[in-house]
Amino acid sequence: MASITCSGSIALDTTRTPFKTVERVLGGAAAYFSMAASFFAPVHVVSVVGEDFPDKYWELLEKGGINMDGVQKKPGKTFHYDCSYSFDLYQRFANKTELNVLGEFEPIVPENARKSEFVYLATMPPEKQLDVLHQVDGKKLAFMDTIEFYIRGSSEALLRTIAEVDGIVLNDAEARMLAEEPNLVKCGRKISKLGPSITIIKKGEHGALLFHNDHVIPFPAFPLDELLDPNGAGDAFAGGFVGALAERNATKPNIADLKVAMAYANVMGSIAVEGFSVDRIVRASRDEIKKRFASYVELMSIH
Amino acid sequence: MASITCSGSIALDTTRTPFKTVERVLGGAAAYFSMAASFFAPVHVVSVVGEDFPDKYWELLEKGGINMDGVQKKPGKTFHYDCSYSFDLYQRFANKTELNVLGEFEPIVPENARKSEFVYLATMPPEKQLDVLHQVDGKKLAFMDTIEFYIRGSSEALLRTIAEVDGIVLNDAEARMLAEEPNLVKCGRKISKLGPSITIIKKGEHGALLFHNDHVIPFPAFPLDELLDPNGAGDAFAGGFVGALAERNATKPNIADLKVAMAYANVMGSIAVEGFSVDRIVRASRDEIKKRFASYVELMSIH
Repeated sequence: MASITCSGSIALDTTRTPFKTVERVLGGAAAYFSMAASFFAPVHVVSVVGEDFPDKYWELLEKGGINMDGVQKKPGKTFHYDCSYSFDLYQRFANKTELNVLGEFEPIVPENARKSEFVYLATMPPEKQLDVLHQVDGKKLAFMDTIEFYIRGSSEALLRTIAEVDGIVLNDAEARMLAEEPNLVKCGRKISKLGPSITIIKKGEHGALLFHNDHVIPFPAFPLDELLDPNGAGDAFAGGFVGALAERNATKPNIADLKVAMAYANVMGSIAVEGFSVDRIVRASRDEIKKRFASYVELMSIH
Repeated sequence: MASITCSGSIALDTTRTPFKTVERVLGGAAAYFSMAASFFAPVHVVSVVGEDFPDKYWELLEKGGINMDGVQKKPGKTFHYDCSYSFDLYQRFANKTELNVLGEFEPIVPENARKSEFVYLATMPPEKQLDVLHQVDGKKLAFMDTIEFYIRGSSEALLRTIAEVDGIVLNDAEARMLAEEPNLVKCGRKISKLGPSITIIKKGEHGALLFHNDHVIPFPAFPLDELLDPNGAGDAFAGGFVGALAERNATKPNIADLKVAMAYANVMGSIAVEGFSVDRIVRASRDEIKKRFASYVELMSIH
C-alpha cells in the first residue's frame, strides 16, 4: 500500500468554546491530518515538539499507527495556540500564537519517509514546505495547504511552492485572497492556473468545491446537529482526502477517485468536529467511517 | 397533469449591480416562481398589478403558459422594489419598497385555480397567505415562503399559517430568526415541529438543506462562473421544486421525489441568476433544463 509523508505543526492547543474550555491538548495541522489519514494508509510525520510535549500524546499518535521517526524533540516548548470561539462557533479569535520550537524548525525527512508516494505539506513557511517536498524522492502526488499570513507575506516563495505541487487545499477566505476574486468558481480556476491540477476550496459547514481540469464539483458538508470544536476540521478533511487516494494508490487520480476522496474528506471533517482536540477521531473506527461514507454517498444520490 | 396555484407579488424591479442597472423590469416572487414552475406544470397566478404594468410583461407571462385569470388590474401603481448589490453580489441593499396596489390586495382565487393540487404561497402577510390557501379546495400539497418582516412582526398569524402548510421554504437568516437557533440543522428540525413535514433552508451560493421526517439532506448549488442578478433566485428555486413535484403528481412525495425536486430547484435557481429579471428563465428550454439536471445528478453521484 502507498504511504503518506506529512509535514507541519504538532501543537498544544487551548480551545475556548461557549460550552467548554480545554487546555494544552493535542493539536496542530500535522496531528489532525495524520490521525485522520492513518485510517486509510501508513503515515510518516515530519514535525517538531518541545520538552513539554506529554508522552501520552506521543503514544497516542504512535498507537494510531503513525510513524514518528521524523518528529524532532527539541529543547524549549511545543508550539502553542490559544483561541476562542463565538457563541455559535462560526467565528474564531486567536488569543495567543506561540511558535516556540516550531520557529526554528528545520525539517529532516527520515529515510523511510522519503519513499512515500503521497506528500501533504500542512501550513508552514513556503520555503520549508518546498524543502520537505524536495526531500521526498518517492513522491508521486503532493498536496499543500497555506494560510492568509503566507499569502500576504511571502507570495514569491509561495507561488514557487504552489507551482511544484499537484494539489492545493485552501479555505474560502484564503482562496479569495490568493486569487484576488470574490466568485469562488473563478477563484478555483485562477488558482489551478498557478500549477496544481487539483484545487480544493473548503467552505466549512457549507462543504467544499473541487476543481480538476475543467471540472468544478461542489460537495456539501455532512449535516451535523452537534458541533463541539471546529479546530482541525480542515486538516482532518485533508487527511481523509489524501488518505483515501493513498489507500486506492491513486497517484494519477481520475474524477471518480477524487469524488470518493472528497466524500471521505467530508466524513473525516465531520467526525473531527464532534469532539474536542483529536478525541473523536481517536474514538472512530474503520467501520464507522465506512458507514458514514455510505450515508454520504446515499444522501448525494438522486434517482 | 396536476396544476399549481401560486399567490404573491408581481413587481416592477429596479436592480442596480456593479455591471449594470435595469429599471422597472418584471419581478416579484410570483413572477419568478411561475416562470420557473411553468416548465413543469400548468400554473395559475393570484396577484395584483397597477395601471402602469406594461402589456409586454403581461403577454410574456401568458406566453409562458401561465394562467393570469387571478391577476387583478387595479387603479394605481404596481408594487415597486429598488435595490443595489455589493461589488461581489453577496449583499443586497433595499433602496425603495413601494407596495402601491399590493398594499390593499384582496386575493380572489378564480374557479379553475381552486382545483389545483399544488399551492405555493409566496411572501405576503400571513393572513393573506391563509386566505388564499383556504380558497384552493383541491389542494393536496401546499408550500409557503416568508420574510424576516413577518417573522418579527406577526408571529401568531405566521405560526397559524405554518401549521397549515405541508412545506416551508426559507433562507438561512429567516430560518435562524424563526427557530432562534444558529445551527441550521437544529433550525430545520425545530421548524418541522411547527407543522410542515417538508422544510427547506436555502443558503444562496451554498445550496440548500432539505428536512423531511428524520432526514436531513444537503444540496450544493450548481456551480456558476458568472452570476448577473441574484434577484428572484429563491423564487425560481421554489418554482423548480414545486414544479417538479407537480409534474410527477407527487402529492405525497417520498424522499426520492423530494431529491429530484431539489435538484430541479437548484437547476432553476442557477438559471435565474444568469440573467437580469426573468430574461434568462424566458430563454431557457425544457431540453436545457433536462440537461442541466442530468449534469447536477452526475456531479453528485459518487461511485
